[in-house]
Amino acid sequence: MERVTLIGGGLAGALLAVYLARRGFAVDVFEKRADMRKLSTSAGRSINLALSTRGIHALKEVALAEVVLRDAIPMRGRMLHSSDGNLSFAPYGKNDTEVINSISRRNLNISLMTAAERHKNVRFHFNQRCVRAEAHQNGVMLELLDEETGHSSTVESSLVIGTDGSASAVRADLFKLPRFDFLQEHLQHSYKELTIPPASNATHVMQRHALHIWPRGGFMMIALPNPDGSFTCTLFYLYEGERSFVSLKDQTDVLALFRAEFQDALALMPTLKQDFFENPIGHLATIKCFPWHHTNKLLLIGDAAHAIVPFYGQGMNCAFEDCSVLDECIGRHVVANKVDWESVFLEYEVKRKPNTDAIADLALDNFIEMRDLVARPKFLLKRKLEHLLEERYPGDFISKYAMVTFHRIPYAEAMRKGRIQDIVLDEAVAQVDSLEEINLELLWGKMCNALVNTP
Amino acid sequence: MERVTLIGGGLAGALLAVYLARRGFAVDVFEKRADMRKLSTSAGRSINLALSTRGIHALKEVALAEVVLRDAIPMRGRMLHSSDGNLSFAPYGKNDTEVINSISRRNLNISLMTAAERHKNVRFHFNQRCVRAEAHQNGVMLELLDEETGHSSTVESSLVIGTDGSASAVRADLFKLPRFDFLQEHLQHSYKELTIPPASNATHVMQRHALHIWPRGGFMMIALPNPDGSFTCTLFYLYEGERSFVSLKDQTDVLALFRAEFQDALALMPTLKQDFFENPIGHLATIKCFPWHHTNKLLLIGDAAHAIVPFYGQGMNCAFEDCSVLDECIGRHVVANKVDWESVFLEYEVKRKPNTDAIADLALDNFIEMRDLVARPKFLLKRKLEHLLEERYPGDFISKYAMVTFHRIPYAEAMRKGRIQDIVLDEAVAQVDSLEEINLELLWGKMCNALVNTP
Repeated sequence: MERVTLIGGGLAGALLAVYLARRGFAVDVFEKRADMRKLSTSAGRSINLALSTRGIHALKEVALAEVVLRDAIPMRGRMLHSSDGNLSFAPYGKNDTEVINSISRRNLNISLMTAAERHKNVRFHFNQRCVRAEAHQNGVMLELLDEETGHSSTVESSLVIGTDGSASAVRADLFKLPRFDFLQEHLQHSYKELTIPPASNATHVMQRHALHIWPRGGFMMIALPNPDGSFTCTLFYLYEGERSFVSLKDQTDVLALFRAEFQDALALMPTLKQDFFENPIGHLATIKCFPWHHTNKLLLIGDAAHAIVPFYGQGMNCAFEDCSVLDECIGRHVVANKVDWESVFLEYEVKRKPNTDAIADLALDNFIEMRDLVARPKFLLKRKLEHLLEERYPGDFISKYAMVTFHRIPYAEAMRKGRIQDIVLDEAVAQVDSLEEINLELLWGKMCNALVNTP
Repeated sequence: MERVTLIGGGLAGALLAVYLARRGFAVDVFEKRADMRKLSTSAGRSINLALSTRGIHALKEVALAEVVLRDAIPMRGRMLHSSDGNLSFAPYGKNDTEVINSISRRNLNISLMTAAERHKNVRFHFNQRCVRAEAHQNGVMLELLDEETGHSSTVESSLVIGTDGSASAVRADLFKLPRFDFLQEHLQHSYKELTIPPASNATHVMQRHALHIWPRGGFMMIALPNPDGSFTCTLFYLYEGERSFVSLKDQTDVLALFRAEFQDALALMPTLKQDFFENPIGHLATIKCFPWHHTNKLLLIGDAAHAIVPFYGQGMNCAFEDCSVLDECIGRHVVANKVDWESVFLEYEVKRKPNTDAIADLALDNFIEMRDLVARPKFLLKRKLEHLLEERYPGDFISKYAMVTFHRIPYAEAMRKGRIQDIVLDEAVAQVDSLEEINLELLWGKMCNALVNTP
């Protein structure tokens, strides 16, 4: 039984462990944190997760979708909060099956780890931080630091997969390749997590089946529902400058901001003043690199290979799709029970790189859409037009959001088509005040033409 | 006397040492190589250097231009070699003072080191490789490896400037900043240096006052004159693929390529077959990062902060301009003989970053121009039109190449203006076969209009 070492037991690592175990590999997972099942701490600060079609597909492949979705709260659309407290709702999909699912990172991670450990060929090693991975002639040398005892140890592995996230230690090995490309680029905006607690009867104080957005142009707040009745809010705000996290020096500044911009939310946030200065500021970066592998010995997947900003809700979904694609590539390169790993890695890279680049770019675009465009009247008109086209031309027209979120169309194709569609749709709604003024057949002809003729 | 530590005694480090010594700082320069004045080896494999106005300006500021230019060979233009051996000459400037200067990296580095050491407050420490730089509360901890003895040592410095080139070890410290941006991107093309030896009477076998180019569309070779009568040739070729370095497996392959593409050069390259397989393949990358400093303790300049591809001949010139701008910033922040280093670094970054980004992009553009466009008839027409406009509107019109090469107009401004000019010029020459057909006044009006109205 061939042995595979995973560095990182987060969402990507734990799910990949399940996939590999099902193929009969012996899997060791080295995770720097303690076993979260034995602790009450969270799985690391993070924006709430929205599980959608790509992630669910991967979970289905390993028969975990049902148990995971049991704890999820479906969000049917965006609930927009204007400055004066008015609400408007923009559905995500054309019907009630097209929803995204608010889910707890911690519970999901625990489900995946427990599922992986049900295979007796999987072993998690907690409190083991990988500080160095070095590919050599016969395998990979891993230097591990025991976070409890402070002791260092060295482990040899013939095959290492880095599932250790955006600050990947495994990735450092690839910098030794003669032509390794790397990009790490931060947004001007950072974020802070805040909370809206449940009502006294443990129910939600706002519509629970929605992702709430307070779009304010240059910045925004969002809130996602949790099963305990609370919402996790995330404020996205410039890191520095005149109106920024750095300029919010005390509780008076924070209250002034919330009174002016998030009045309705403020009334639901009794612990805002404390939370704001206790919770850390998180930074947001896009990471791209290439290649992702070193000979037949080392590979990166998930955030370690391609971290993205969270505004399309695709980070985890993309990482889960990585696992699914990698598993598929392994299946194609097994000969006499032996895997030709270099061929697996090369095929995986070729298939996956254009798509992870595309979702990185789409996620950056979507920040502007969320914080700014959704608040404009034309945006709601455009969404309605998209749903109308989806009804009229079922299967032939799929909105960009739907291609990314409710389908498994490769991200690169979704980006290409979606951007062309956007040009045609934006032009159409710019000229009208209501959808009745639009000749759908004419518009559809124009769109088909653009899709065929734009490179 | 305040002490400054430079990591790297290459071109940027040695010149900066001179600038700092003149301001009265005590300067320690740690250089990983041996003292090249005691050895006959080269200063590291590299494409030949073309010293031009920005570099010369910096050298003049420290009174070194005259001595350096004494060894230089002025190149007045590009000598284009077609596949069938025809030559055509395209001057760089509008007159004989607008030239670029072929210069030996080794001799230049030696001149700068010797000039720096003439100040008794400068000390070079050779064979000292910096493997780690770590900024902390009170300064910077440097871990040095003695390349001769293999011994490690630690040095504390209150101020470190990384002049350690594109593979900078000092830069690694900045990755610990919470919002450090980094890009490292390789060209598909790599390069190999080859040689055309002198004639038996030690003279040049081709026109010596030119930069020779064999433009072949997807690839090219160039040659720069050396004082000993030889030329250093550099072949830029795809690294991998059907027609690439990887596909050139033996001497037969190499000869076939040179016979088909560089017939006239082949006749002048008696050692080609050996050179080709003995000389290493070099890779070409753009590196961008930000910020360049850590509090008031650490700064990067030169290639360590912004490595560029060599096609505009500006890598060294840009690094020398870095030294000049930094020196100017220091001058503005000296109070009572004490330098406010953090203000120096902040001002330096703000002034310099848009310009180093611009020259990186211009250098990438120029690869396409050199390997492809210069061979087209319209290119020569365009160059002539530019020189005509420079004569007709002296001071008002300056070609993009001249702004970058013969002026000290900020690179970002040269890029912005140059790109607008290119659009107008390309349009003008596209429609004609000779310059007589062009109404210069009309064209000039159009260009002024475009320059004013394009953002």
